[in-house]
Amino acid sequence: MRSVKRIADSTIRRLSVYLRFLEDFESRGLATISSDELARRGGTTSAQVRKDLSLFGSFGKRGLGYSVPELASRLREILGLGRQWKVVIIGAGKIGAALVQYLGLKQRGFRVLAAYDSDSSKIGKTFEGIPVRDVGHLERDARKNPPDIAVLAVPSDNAQAVVNRLVACGVKAILNFAAAQLQVPSDVTVKTVNMAMELEGLSFALTSRD
Amino acid sequence: MRSVKRIADSTIRRLSVYLRFLEDFESRGLATISSDELARRGGTTSAQVRKDLSLFGSFGKRGLGYSVPELASRLREILGLGRQWKVVIIGAGKIGAALVQYLGLKQRGFRVLAAYDSDSSKIGKTFEGIPVRDVGHLERDARKNPPDIAVLAVPSDNAQAVVNRLVACGVKAILNFAAAQLQVPSDVTVKTVNMAMELEGLSFALTSRD
Repeated sequence: MRSVKRIADSTIRRLSVYLRFLEDFESRGLATISSDELARRGGTTSAQVRKDLSLFGSFGKRGLGYSVPELASRLREILGLGRQWKVVIIGAGKIGAALVQYLGLKQRGFRVLAAYDSDSSKIGKTFEGIPVRDVGHLERDARKNPPDIAVLAVPSDNAQAVVNRLVACGVKAILNFAAAQLQVPSDVTVKTVNMAMELEGLSFALTSRD
Repeated sequence: MRSVKRIADSTIRRLSVYLRFLEDFESRGLATISSDELARRGGTTSAQVRKDLSLFGSFGKRGLGYSVPELASRLREILGLGRQWKVVIIGAGKIGAALVQYLGLKQRGFRVLAAYDSDSSKIGKTFEGIPVRDVGHLERDARKNPPDIAVLAVPSDNAQAVVNRLVACGVKAILNFAAAQLQVPSDVTVKTVNMAMELEGLSFALTSRD
């Protein structure tokens, strides 16, 4: 695909949303969808849908809407879902274990190689068929089978040190569940899921309505 | 506090980040912080810090920086963290259980009343001292002790039906872990944490660098 630069995160999220609806439509055997319908389901406007898609080329025909299988296939390609990404999960606590389960069962396109922990009571166990390995083996394992994405589910005190090791292993994409601001080189992408911040956002919304 | 309208989510997230640094400073007994230092730690600019804070009144003195305890206290007030919010968790599967643990142990200001499930093998158990109750009792429980915030950790097929029940119970804030677009009245705030979308954002970033 052609190189795509500086696309806003919010655009990528909307593409993910559109893809979900298209796949729902595909599974029901529907052939076309209008930008109006995509917009309505995605909670946006048809102008926004057209603008989002126009960033990646020309789609659909005026008055006929989009071909569902064609647009779904193109969005999968744009989002990089045509291949399988290798994922490691660092931290096999409650959150890490829930993520192994989630990723193991639900996400096509993402294959979990292993979870890592430093707790000897966890090392050697398996979650959903995924081995829990000694985090001391991270570098050696990564040389044999380099992961594309690391999911970070370690205590926040420990997060930056683990990230430094992941970056040294060549990992370029990190999904961070630790409540820490991470420093990474500019060629590494970090997405942070921070439940405390989401809750504070709700607390703010409840407070400012009073 | 005075009514605050239409503050961007990104601003609120930055306030949460600033508060974390301020609390770290408080715990180390430091009295003042400059907008430069807040900016550097928060990965933003000092102009942005000053702009964010100016939305909520006047803080700090030119050349002297901000008083750490004063600004921390004001941010807690702005974010509504001076009181305790009552939380229910709907869905006691792996993700729900991990959330109970997380919320139960870590989040001051958020008190989990109960988790709800329809699975009779889970009902009656406790997670971290939090009871798992029959979701059929949701409305009755909510009349006795109305929750402020609901955390939704149910399968996506089921999510809208549960949300309709929560809205009917008067819940005005929902943290959604289901992979579903939820329809809610305009006075209800929903924050969605969607791991599939975060992963697709990483997949996109990896793909577009090639």
